[in-house]
Amino acid sequence: MSKVFVNIGLSLDGYMAPEGMTMEDFEYKNWGAKWSALMAWLINQQSFRENLKFGPGGETGPVNDLVRRTMERIGANIMGKRMFDQGERAWPEEAPFHTPVYVLTHEKREPWVRPGGTTFHFVNDGPERALERARESAGSRDIRIAGGADVIQQYLNLGVVDEVEIALAPVLFGGGRRLFEILRESGPLFRIDKVLDGPAATHLRYVRQ
Amino acid sequence: MSKVFVNIGLSLDGYMAPEGMTMEDFEYKNWGAKWSALMAWLINQQSFRENLKFGPGGETGPVNDLVRRTMERIGANIMGKRMFDQGERAWPEEAPFHTPVYVLTHEKREPWVRPGGTTFHFVNDGPERALERARESAGSRDIRIAGGADVIQQYLNLGVVDEVEIALAPVLFGGGRRLFEILRESGPLFRIDKVLDGPAATHLRYVRQ
Repeated sequence: MSKVFVNIGLSLDGYMAPEGMTMEDFEYKNWGAKWSALMAWLINQQSFRENLKFGPGGETGPVNDLVRRTMERIGANIMGKRMFDQGERAWPEEAPFHTPVYVLTHEKREPWVRPGGTTFHFVNDGPERALERARESAGSRDIRIAGGADVIQQYLNLGVVDEVEIALAPVLFGGGRRLFEILRESGPLFRIDKVLDGPAATHLRYVRQ
Repeated sequence: MSKVFVNIGLSLDGYMAPEGMTMEDFEYKNWGAKWSALMAWLINQQSFRENLKFGPGGETGPVNDLVRRTMERIGANIMGKRMFDQGERAWPEEAPFHTPVYVLTHEKREPWVRPGGTTFHFVNDGPERALERARESAGSRDIRIAGGADVIQQYLNLGVVDEVEIALAPVLFGGGRRLFEILRESGPLFRIDKVLDGPAATHLRYVRQ
């Protein structure tokens, strides 16, 4: 069966996004610099650049292989409405998912088909139903809970997350949206599966035990 | 000059200590099981066992070498009053520091000399003065900010912490005392220096840049 996984960048102090993050003002609370430090490990990887059509070139090596394998395993994505709203303004026309994307929202809206294989489906009947639909469309590939933090927390609290992959970057946000909060379960739920030591982030992979 | 460093165990969700941690009741909020999961990487290392006189044996290898090197580099410790109070009840007569220990407190108390080289000094005039005294006694060795979380935060906020070493354990506490909170500075203050991948914790070493 498909695995359900989370794959995110995290600041050393546990935030997925810095405080004050708004597309309108990169200087606000210094969020642009913090975000850049969080993403520094990724931004120049060949497979990431290729996916966003940044042009040829970019780093190859174990971190790039990790990024490529992650992209290749995804059969469906699930995300929250706030992440979608930010992305709707920021993604290129060919949105960088190339799979069905299930957006958790109260808004009713027809599926939005993008060139390159991404179709956004707007799901009004909750995270469990979104996961069912994602499973149906993913086939033998895996399902990524893309974010934001609140959506990941909902799926952690449903107990359905098989794997958590974290790129832990050496930046302190000092505030923002934390990944691990309001958890229903606690204890040694996960085990360390793999660690890849990159210069700009430490890639931690945990598997539910 | 001596380095000032932090070396702690941290839960995957960023806590140094679980909620409800009290020596009187290990079952309370399941804190005993969480704490055991946090410390699992350390408890059977040879040099840790030796230091606490748990008897011969224990694991050797890179994690044990890390523990030994850490102990050997410390010329003075600094800790908060709550950590001292818990330790006063829990440490063996030969307290496991073997250095001067500066305890931040409002309480006035004569130095408390323990067999084995540990002397607790009670400092009433703030963290900066405690650090000065620790520097005087540490000589060429280093100064460990031992904890708890609030004391580490005070020194992070003074901007004097040169190195942060974290043993990140795959356990979710779901609540408790977070390490990184109430930070005065934020941004890419640290860089990754070393990562050691152990089975029960990932040993992350950050150096101030």
